[in-house]
Amino acid sequence: MTNPLPYLLAQRKPDQVGTVIRVGSVSIGGQQPTIIAGPCAVESKEQILAAAHAVKRSGANLLRGGAYKPRTSPYDFQGLGELGLKLLSDAREATGLPVVTEILSEQDINLIAEYADMLQVGARNMQNFSLLKKLGQIDKPILLKRGPNASVKEWLLAAEYILHQGNPNVVLCERGIRTANGAGRNTLDLAAILEAKQLCHLPVIADPSHSTGKSEWVMPMSCAAMALGADGLIIEVHPDPANAKSDNDQQLDFSEFDSLMGKLYLKPLSTAGFAGGWGMD
Amino acid sequence: MTNPLPYLLAQRKPDQVGTVIRVGSVSIGGQQPTIIAGPCAVESKEQILAAAHAVKRSGANLLRGGAYKPRTSPYDFQGLGELGLKLLSDAREATGLPVVTEILSEQDINLIAEYADMLQVGARNMQNFSLLKKLGQIDKPILLKRGPNASVKEWLLAAEYILHQGNPNVVLCERGIRTANGAGRNTLDLAAILEAKQLCHLPVIADPSHSTGKSEWVMPMSCAAMALGADGLIIEVHPDPANAKSDNDQQLDFSEFDSLMGKLYLKPLSTAGFAGGWGMD
Amino acid sequence: MTNPLPYLLAQRKPDQVGTVIRVGSVSIGGQQPTIIAGPCAVESKEQILAAAHAVKRSGANLLRGGAYKPRTSPYDFQGLGELGLKLLSDAREATGLPVVTEILSEQDINLIAEYADMLQVGARNMQNFSLLKKLGQIDKPILLKRGPNASVKEWLLAAEYILHQGNPNVVLCERGIRTANGAGRNTLDLAAILEAKQLCHLPVIADPSHSTGKSEWVMPMSCAAMALGADGLIIEVHPDPANAKSDNDQQLDFSEFDSLMGKLYLKPLSTAGFAGGWGMD
Amino acid sequence: MTNPLPYLLAQRKPDQVGTVIRVGSVSIGGQQPTIIAGPCAVESKEQILAAAHAVKRSGANLLRGGAYKPRTSPYDFQGLGELGLKLLSDAREATGLPVVTEILSEQDINLIAEYADMLQVGARNMQNFSLLKKLGQIDKPILLKRGPNASVKEWLLAAEYILHQGNPNVVLCERGIRTANGAGRNTLDLAAILEAKQLCHLPVIADPSHSTGKSEWVMPMSCAAMALGADGLIIEVHPDPANAKSDNDQQLDFSEFDSLMGKLYLKPLSTAGFAGGWGMD
Repeated sequence: MTNPLPYLLAQRKPDQVGTVIRVGSVSIGGQQPTIIAGPCAVESKEQILAAAHAVKRSGANLLRGGAYKPRTSPYDFQGLGELGLKLLSDAREATGLPVVTEILSEQDINLIAEYADMLQVGARNMQNFSLLKKLGQIDKPILLKRGPNASVKEWLLAAEYILHQGNPNVVLCERGIRTANGAGRNTLDLAAILEAKQLCHLPVIADPSHSTGKSEWVMPMSCAAMALGADGLIIEVHPDPANAKSDNDQQLDFSEFDSLMGKLYLKPLSTAGFAGGWGMD
Repeated sequence: MTNPLPYLLAQRKPDQVGTVIRVGSVSIGGQQPTIIAGPCAVESKEQILAAAHAVKRSGANLLRGGAYKPRTSPYDFQGLGELGLKLLSDAREATGLPVVTEILSEQDINLIAEYADMLQVGARNMQNFSLLKKLGQIDKPILLKRGPNASVKEWLLAAEYILHQGNPNVVLCERGIRTANGAGRNTLDLAAILEAKQLCHLPVIADPSHSTGKSEWVMPMSCAAMALGADGLIIEVHPDPANAKSDNDQQLDFSEFDSLMGKLYLKPLSTAGFAGGWGMD
Repeated sequence: MTNPLPYLLAQRKPDQVGTVIRVGSVSIGGQQPTIIAGPCAVESKEQILAAAHAVKRSGANLLRGGAYKPRTSPYDFQGLGELGLKLLSDAREATGLPVVTEILSEQDINLIAEYADMLQVGARNMQNFSLLKKLGQIDKPILLKRGPNASVKEWLLAAEYILHQGNPNVVLCERGIRTANGAGRNTLDLAAILEAKQLCHLPVIADPSHSTGKSEWVMPMSCAAMALGADGLIIEVHPDPANAKSDNDQQLDFSEFDSLMGKLYLKPLSTAGFAGGWGMD
Repeated sequence: MTNPLPYLLAQRKPDQVGTVIRVGSVSIGGQQPTIIAGPCAVESKEQILAAAHAVKRSGANLLRGGAYKPRTSPYDFQGLGELGLKLLSDAREATGLPVVTEILSEQDINLIAEYADMLQVGARNMQNFSLLKKLGQIDKPILLKRGPNASVKEWLLAAEYILHQGNPNVVLCERGIRTANGAGRNTLDLAAILEAKQLCHLPVIADPSHSTGKSEWVMPMSCAAMALGADGLIIEVHPDPANAKSDNDQQLDFSEFDSLMGKLYLKPLSTAGFAGGWGMD
């Protein structure tokens, strides 16, 4: 017994313009793409401050960093917890960048909402309906990642859980789906961005880091997502990717991120071939 | 940085016999398969009592029934909540069958543990690590379903999260994976049962209801899972599947369940052909 | 513009009994399961004769063996070609077992049909429509494997291509689908056997060798497929799997195959636990 | 027993520049992207001539059109056969565009090679090794589509089959993979283009028509593939998509194709938002 209007609140009405979501002073879904950047995990004061300054300098709009990490094994680094939140807050103070960080437990909502400007629901929790309902009752914007095997319909209904509880500020993030033989860590499903934007008025950004799992593919995939019309990107950037505590292969260093930002914004259109993409270099 | 012994506690040591998990007076993982049966959701006192008596009569060992339902849409029936728990408890009193029910929220652990004999983690929450950690701190057995796209390794590491916190009583349940072109609702991955039992000492049962999504396929798939060596089955049974509040197509009625149980236990081996399976009829 | 009766010839009419296909003196689809066994590839006279005698002794009904091998790399062993066909024919003469072998090229049809009793279309050629049409014009039975990513509908329509050209003798074979996280080499989709038998009157057998890719899983998966109601099995058996020219990990040796056949036919029903399967040991 | 240099001929050596493949007067893999366009199937003289003139006018470099169609059902339109080849040849004469068309049968190689400038191996035949070997013995360039479930490694080894027989002129085409929950008909795996270009020196183009299956998604997906660095595109264009004999939903009409070509080449870089893509409009 399914409701005849399955996405009562998330659904884009005919001719409805896309909703712009505000995160602090930053807009997502407007006339400019929004770039979220920062390390996979907050590891130390030095690391997060260095990353925050670097991504700000290159033009990023928001800072990301995990304080509570959803790790496949209980024996892997689980994040710094509240200390990580404090360090993120310090980095915001130092750079002015609003902060987005992942929430794993319903019981941490108040704590995280105190420190962060936007709360991220990770791919594994996309259908943690109990968490979604509670996030619908706070007044912070939510970044909702698509599950690695979720249909677009299921993803939009997960957003609907949040909207339905009264929080209208949801940004969707496509981060790749698991496939039998796709190249890389996950397969970035760009058509899902098109479908989500057709069906739903919320902004949709892309995650080229988790989808590819390889730092050298992040730039061309970012160009592709932008050319397609994504509302922004979330990119992992670390001072020293080889020695990061997680996601070593996919984090960009500062110089790589700076090149990527230059590619996205500054260069005139040409057709210079593979290394840079036809339309972007 | 992954631990060299990824499944420190879940791992089957050479020649280790399988662990037997006790749920009330019932064993899972021993010399007899264990059959868990009951409706998708608890809907009313009459419904759950009728189902409990019927599955008991046919030989089931445990009663299942959802009080908190993880539904794709917020507009679908979400379960009776605590009332559902009370009705399950009444059904246990009436039949003597221990009760297993799904938990969706960390905040419900104490409440559900008060009423139920075993707590089920559904497929969507297999990597809700915060929930897994808290379930590792209670003294009730846990039924851990495999995520619809999880590898066997990820599934065993999810179990490891529970064991690591001190709760050794975990039963694994294979319920089908999502595939591009597999027949039915999900594809029951029987080889995953073989792999899980090779790598891990915990019992592994199969769910022929959610995997096939079709009531007429539940019997042959149950026979297959038993012939393969699964430690048991969890089967959806409802007094009136056509009018159930969820999972209408896959629930068995009482007569179908009774036939299935007869097939599994009572008939001598023959080779009577397709309708009953070569080895089971 | 799809035909309203998509499987005009393959479709099972209401109450239609399954079609029995004859291969030499052997029936597939009747009251007894049919077991096809033999090496992945014909490698030498000694090898194929030894294998033929061994599988015959254990009760197999047909001999399999590849003379033309579809290998992922052009640098891998491509089969003995016509010599392989001759050796298969010798093995048939020595044992009385009819012979099935794979066809890769339309241009080999007459040659292979001269030597073999049944021609196999491999998974990679399931939608080689040009080959299917030509196989519809000969009078030998065809063993049609399901593609590793084909839907049941596509599989039945591939059979329809053969039937439509006038050859009614097609046996379907489920050999596993490719999935993102399924255990083993491919995921045996047993529900596809149920769906194919519901929709279509042709016999359907299972391939536990290619689906699992592990010799130790072939026995329990064979028991599962038989318990479900498959019309037979095709199993790779080699005198010395470790030194085979292909598929080393999944071929059974003679002793393992003999145990499997004993398990399928000779033992009384019991519930002796995992090692043998509840219904089969 | 796999060769230690699995892609002996296809493999990109360190610092090797990409190979440029010539099709008539057209280059694929050079400094400019190559656009192949035309209808799914050749249906009539009027249709193919109109399409050829239209795509030429908008800037396409090659004409595509199917004379032999690989259809899932034997009852669907199978193509005009040799008549279709003649009409393609007429269209080339009228427009100067070289012609690419699909080959389904080894027995048609000489016939098709007489009419066409490039022969296409469709996704279903990517591992039709017998066909690949014979195509390695002719002197026409080959367009090799990736199978809907093939790994990049398998795809490159399929190319190796052609190269190994002596034909060095192979262009790879990514056309989408089948996934459980990807949006659209298939999931365009753009990372596979990156991986193929890293491992292999051959040009790689993208097919936004078959991957998305929806005409309105062809433009943004084309922009994405170009921004990523694909060497070209193959796009279905039909005078009247609604009345085409196949692929009605995904073919562009002439006006849509003209807009797409304008988007790819003519517009200055801006960030005008979703409708046109950030980098492309």
